[in-house]
Amino acid sequence: MLSLPTLLFSAFKRPLPLITGKFSHLRPFDNYFVTSESSFSSEQLRHMSSHSPVQLLEMVKSVIPPLHYEMHKGQAGRLAIIGGCQEYTGAPYFAAISALKVGADLSHVFCSSDAATVIKSYSPELIVHPLLDRQNAIDEISQWLPRFHSLVVGPGLGRDSHLLKTAAAVIQKALVQKLPLVIDADGLFLITQDPSLVQGLSNVILTPNAAEFGRLYRKVFDREPDPTEPIISVKELCRKLGHVTIVHKGLHDIISDGEQVLVCSEQGSPRRCGGQGDLLSGSMGVFAFWSTVSHQKVEEGSLLKIYGPGICAAYAACALTRICSRRAFEVHGRSMTTTDLISQIQESFEYLFT
Amino acid sequence: MLSLPTLLFSAFKRPLPLITGKFSHLRPFDNYFVTSESSFSSEQLRHMSSHSPVQLLEMVKSVIPPLHYEMHKGQAGRLAIIGGCQEYTGAPYFAAISALKVGADLSHVFCSSDAATVIKSYSPELIVHPLLDRQNAIDEISQWLPRFHSLVVGPGLGRDSHLLKTAAAVIQKALVQKLPLVIDADGLFLITQDPSLVQGLSNVILTPNAAEFGRLYRKVFDREPDPTEPIISVKELCRKLGHVTIVHKGLHDIISDGEQVLVCSEQGSPRRCGGQGDLLSGSMGVFAFWSTVSHQKVEEGSLLKIYGPGICAAYAACALTRICSRRAFEVHGRSMTTTDLISQIQESFEYLFT
Repeated sequence: MLSLPTLLFSAFKRPLPLITGKFSHLRPFDNYFVTSESSFSSEQLRHMSSHSPVQLLEMVKSVIPPLHYEMHKGQAGRLAIIGGCQEYTGAPYFAAISALKVGADLSHVFCSSDAATVIKSYSPELIVHPLLDRQNAIDEISQWLPRFHSLVVGPGLGRDSHLLKTAAAVIQKALVQKLPLVIDADGLFLITQDPSLVQGLSNVILTPNAAEFGRLYRKVFDREPDPTEPIISVKELCRKLGHVTIVHKGLHDIISDGEQVLVCSEQGSPRRCGGQGDLLSGSMGVFAFWSTVSHQKVEEGSLLKIYGPGICAAYAACALTRICSRRAFEVHGRSMTTTDLISQIQESFEYLFT
Repeated sequence: MLSLPTLLFSAFKRPLPLITGKFSHLRPFDNYFVTSESSFSSEQLRHMSSHSPVQLLEMVKSVIPPLHYEMHKGQAGRLAIIGGCQEYTGAPYFAAISALKVGADLSHVFCSSDAATVIKSYSPELIVHPLLDRQNAIDEISQWLPRFHSLVVGPGLGRDSHLLKTAAAVIQKALVQKLPLVIDADGLFLITQDPSLVQGLSNVILTPNAAEFGRLYRKVFDREPDPTEPIISVKELCRKLGHVTIVHKGLHDIISDGEQVLVCSEQGSPRRCGGQGDLLSGSMGVFAFWSTVSHQKVEEGSLLKIYGPGICAAYAACALTRICSRRAFEVHGRSMTTTDLISQIQESFEYLFT
């Protein structure tokens, strides 16, 4: 499986446009050599894919629908975010607007009534439903589900037990319809309470950070994950959950479905301001739709067939988010916030995927 | 202690980039010679630190955490602002967004319910809790406190007795946890009503303007402060309150903990639009976290050990706010508002501290 040279070199044909000024010392490619023996043990490296980032980006490019003039509204993607509550309004906004900027046609948010006005006010581009705390929320949201191509559950969902219960029911309804599903943030809290919700469902992508991964792992295995062998821990957990896709976010994003393992080590930024994970989950929702459609049509032996739509979508969103973060950091430095990343989606997307 | 030459020259190695146009007559360094015998009596000057601004900025630089790729979300700072009521929504927003732009990862606001929607709508980057006017506000807010690295109490708090009572209880809870605490605006009204709230607490920074300082001084000493000897009055009050840090804002910002005295006389701007104090308090909250962490690790004899984390944070925020104000004034002149200062945080921070 292992082909070290392919791990040691960058994916990208073109350098990023150089930005002069204080952060110009961060040259593109500077940090591209991070996926190496020094980062992972040889035992772990044996689990990793041997395909180069160039090949993986070709796989992503192959699922992106070409734009043409005969298209109808909605064809490029109708997405819904389940999240947004009394405290958290930024997270679902970031996820929903990122989906549009990546290329979805319509981006819906299902949130609690006290979050809806605020999220609407952030952007007229979004369609915001103040349904999540209604008595008949499950029925009302369920009626909308057939219109969507994918769902992102969790950004700004919060920990209110009523909202979590509704979100759990929506997950179940969405899975009956085989919608691609990205679960992040407090959606992962829900899965940690009841992992059976996603058991055996290969159209589900979970996007835990280190702390969230640890909690889910402990719940499932009743022991700590080995901190020195994260790749193996991720693969183990995917298998135990019946081949859901997991994106273990961190210095390297480790992506697996229990069979294949990809590591995305594109240089991002050292800023850790809140909201970057929402760009990741929102964009992943769009890629999950695109890759699922392509996967049904693609021939055996192609990379997309080998990795499947979940891993393809996860890799695409991880690479995109990291490039957005790097570019925003080059401009804004320590003052960078997530809004600055979102402004970079267009050029980062073009840099990576066109 | 006194070394006049060091007081008479500016701190800064590099001139600010000159801005051409209407305000280009305001050359950088023009007004740097303000901390001189003409400003303070020789009696007062004897109380002042002998360290040069260059040395003081080096102290500040030493506490700023370097950004690196292994960091986790929140590590660079999780801050909370206690403030925001029916009338005042801008102040807590300015403080909270300034904290993010200075480099905090997460910025929360705890405000009254009628302020929350508006503050949220200013920016999706903030996490806003409409809890301050709730019946069980103290319990609800207390649950959040262990997550924070520092607290800023007062921006837009108002004078409603219920909100003030809640804020007082939150101050007490935060102090039990030894959180660095910046108290400004109506938070100072609270302290003037009951100075015992902060008595003997060296992790508290008070940021009164001349009027607020006068009221607090009268409350504590039952007499007027000597207007000709502000440095001595500030030092007196700090001692009487058991070595809290006080920043007496004015033409010169006088900073003391009752032992050491620093004066920040960086050229700011002659505009006195509302909100500049919120940039000061919000950024000071971040520096207070950073300097507190560094202070625990730094060796004896270093400037940070001599001045302590409160004075270091206060000096950093005063210098930063003044540079932001000067730069914004150079661009916007009489039309300058606080939003314009916030746009200058990134470059001002880099100019001062990198």
